Amino acid sequence: MADVFGKKRSAVQRALADDPARPYYRPLSARGAEVEIDGRTVVMAGCNDYLGLSTDPRVTEAAARALRRFGASCSGSRVLNGTLALHEELEGRLAAFVGGEAALVTTTGFQANLALAALLDEGDTVFADMSNHASLVDAVRLSPADHRRYRHSDLDHLDRLLAASDPASGRLIVTDGLFSMEGDLCRLPGLVALARRHGARLVVDGAHDIGLLGARGRGVVEHFGLTGRVDLVTGTLSKCFGSVGGMLVGPADVVEHLRYNARSVLFSAAMPPASAAAALAALDIVESEPERRRRVFGHARRLLEGLRSLGYDTGDSTTPVVPVYTGGTARCLRMWQELLDAGVFTNAVVEPAVARNRALIRVTPQAVHTDGHIARILDAFAEVARRMGPAPAVPPGARPRRPVEVPA
Amino acid sequence: MADVFGKKRSAVQRALADDPARPYYRPLSARGAEVEIDGRTVVMAGCNDYLGLSTDPRVTEAAARALRRFGASCSGSRVLNGTLALHEELEGRLAAFVGGEAALVTTTGFQANLALAALLDEGDTVFADMSNHASLVDAVRLSPADHRRYRHSDLDHLDRLLAASDPASGRLIVTDGLFSMEGDLCRLPGLVALARRHGARLVVDGAHDIGLLGARGRGVVEHFGLTGRVDLVTGTLSKCFGSVGGMLVGPADVVEHLRYNARSVLFSAAMPPASAAAALAALDIVESEPERRRRVFGHARRLLEGLRSLGYDTGDSTTPVVPVYTGGTARCLRMWQELLDAGVFTNAVVEPAVARNRALIRVTPQAVHTDGHIARILDAFAEVARRMGPAPAVPPGARPRRPVEVPA
Repeated sequence: MADVFGKKRSAVQRALADDPARPYYRPLSARGAEVEIDGRTVVMAGCNDYLGLSTDPRVTEAAARALRRFGASCSGSRVLNGTLALHEELEGRLAAFVGGEAALVTTTGFQANLALAALLDEGDTVFADMSNHASLVDAVRLSPADHRRYRHSDLDHLDRLLAASDPASGRLIVTDGLFSMEGDLCRLPGLVALARRHGARLVVDGAHDIGLLGARGRGVVEHFGLTGRVDLVTGTLSKCFGSVGGMLVGPADVVEHLRYNARSVLFSAAMPPASAAAALAALDIVESEPERRRRVFGHARRLLEGLRSLGYDTGDSTTPVVPVYTGGTARCLRMWQELLDAGVFTNAVVEPAVARNRALIRVTPQAVHTDGHIARILDAFAEVARRMGPAPAVPPGARPRRPVEVPA
Repeated sequence: MADVFGKKRSAVQRALADDPARPYYRPLSARGAEVEIDGRTVVMAGCNDYLGLSTDPRVTEAAARALRRFGASCSGSRVLNGTLALHEELEGRLAAFVGGEAALVTTTGFQANLALAALLDEGDTVFADMSNHASLVDAVRLSPADHRRYRHSDLDHLDRLLAASDPASGRLIVTDGLFSMEGDLCRLPGLVALARRHGARLVVDGAHDIGLLGARGRGVVEHFGLTGRVDLVTGTLSKCFGSVGGMLVGPADVVEHLRYNARSVLFSAAMPPASAAAALAALDIVESEPERRRRVFGHARRLLEGLRSLGYDTGDSTTPVVPVYTGGTARCLRMWQELLDAGVFTNAVVEPAVARNRALIRVTPQAVHTDGHIARILDAFAEVARRMGPAPAVPPGARPRRPVEVPA
């Protein structure tokens, strides 16, 4: 008799059982540029708080004030009893910042993406980049739409899939803006052109780019000068905005539809007051301190150039998401441990987050890192290169590396 | 050409367009027993903060301390960089409280339930109560398992579905503990017996009962004296614990499997430090102040008896989730507005949260309500009864009312 509790361990669990490295669920204390792990202080190079705002006193004090004024929770969904003026203010500010008529904030970024299921009916087709975030994949799975996945950033493949689909059906192209593991950007100009040519809608998930990319930090859409040409933008507040929560920004009628039909919105407790206040305070800083973005990109350029000169494969990254491809899970786990021993906390990214042969160490600079921190990260990688030998070659079929782009 | 943005408005949106009532997404200020709406102060009878802990200074001060110490966010998933000792402490405390070997906390209760998808493979079958929460429905939709739904609390129907299923397949029964709209309890003794007889696993969602039901507040499982007889319990921190977040409590190996395989865990930013600290402080109060539970149940009994004596249909509720069936969306919206005019904020619950002909006004007492607040709620319903006429009869086919149960 089968047992739903008798699931086999996943590949990662099996790999961990045979390996002394323990890269996951490790309790960290203190936050910011350095963290404590097992009583040691190391450089934090594995956190998505790009602008360093989660610990900014302006952010935490605004959050603490909201906590005292409104409590630790609204204890109910936005629709029934969980809406505060604070949520509405945040929605208005985010709509203006991202550049849409209206915005809806959700309790997590994951649930912002799941909300897209409410736009999809039987007979609709979604065209999705194969490297899209899991929450975008799950949104389509929750809907009755057909799910067609195109090879990562392969616009010819996408074009063929669109051309082969029923032109009378509802069609939606969905892509990450900045791919969260590989660090490359979606090919937005081409995506906009294909959406236009085939009469499809285009949704971009700006989780890792809103706040970071573009002259004013408005994300990948601003970076490419395409404001107003993307139909709907989703995003998170847990990276550049140092908080937790998600957003959907787009036409007012679409946002209104989501308010009344997205199950991840209707049936989930509202974003806590402290998180909404933290995001608002962070947005002020994102708007007023562009030097934070320049600093992160300066760090990213140093990291990418330094890692490449050490012989590491950083793929197509042109951004502060810096992958170091390791070639296989076991080597990835070992490299993670060696880096930690050398004083740097990174992220060991293996399947299912990436394809089996594309395991990587993800390195993330933050605005609160000093040049000294970046040097320590590169020193650690140099030491690991000496110990573990040269990094593996770029896997066959990988696209050529692009130059490092640094926004003005 | 179809357009995924051209969705028809839902039934609720159409009803609202024709109606002056505006029960949804209304910004409320201040929290607790009374709230402000449009500058008026009214009794809050539409919030799931049963024990009144979201605004308890012990909870909010603990949250504010965590904010200052750890920041507004971990800016990453639990697995990679978002685990604090605070999360581990909360998991240990919740496992001990709910009564399981191990616990996993998630960023929302919605995502705790979605995590169940990681237990389900092709060939498995889920047997689900038709009134289960949307997040349980979506968990099964995200999995490749067969989804068989039995009529609400109809154990004969469940028995037949189980008997007709393949005994060699993995089978899972999933139910709400306290049904969040109807206020009735699952028939747990019968569910445990059926699971045992058919070799199925049983998962109970304790979102509305953990903290509230049972002599020590450990939920519906304790209420029925069945601790240790349910395979896995899920729950939320946004109701009795005055915070935001979710939990899964069960055998250590199953919880470990979820840590490494549940996509809503792996791919979502960790619960913010403030929310974890708030939940821990609330758990202390849940454990040390049982009089809060007695107070809520005393209020519930007064409400249920008072509403029934006014001729209202409160269905099968025996708990602080007090439904008043209104018979149709339009009448529900009107009753909500009349109650607000009479000084009481309630929840107007219509499809898709309940079946079309089961629209209801949900009334929720809290420990922070005084006897005077309960009297004001009943007075408002009496006034509305005079204005709108008698409540509609119990719909045909509804089960007979059960007596009001108040735990010792």
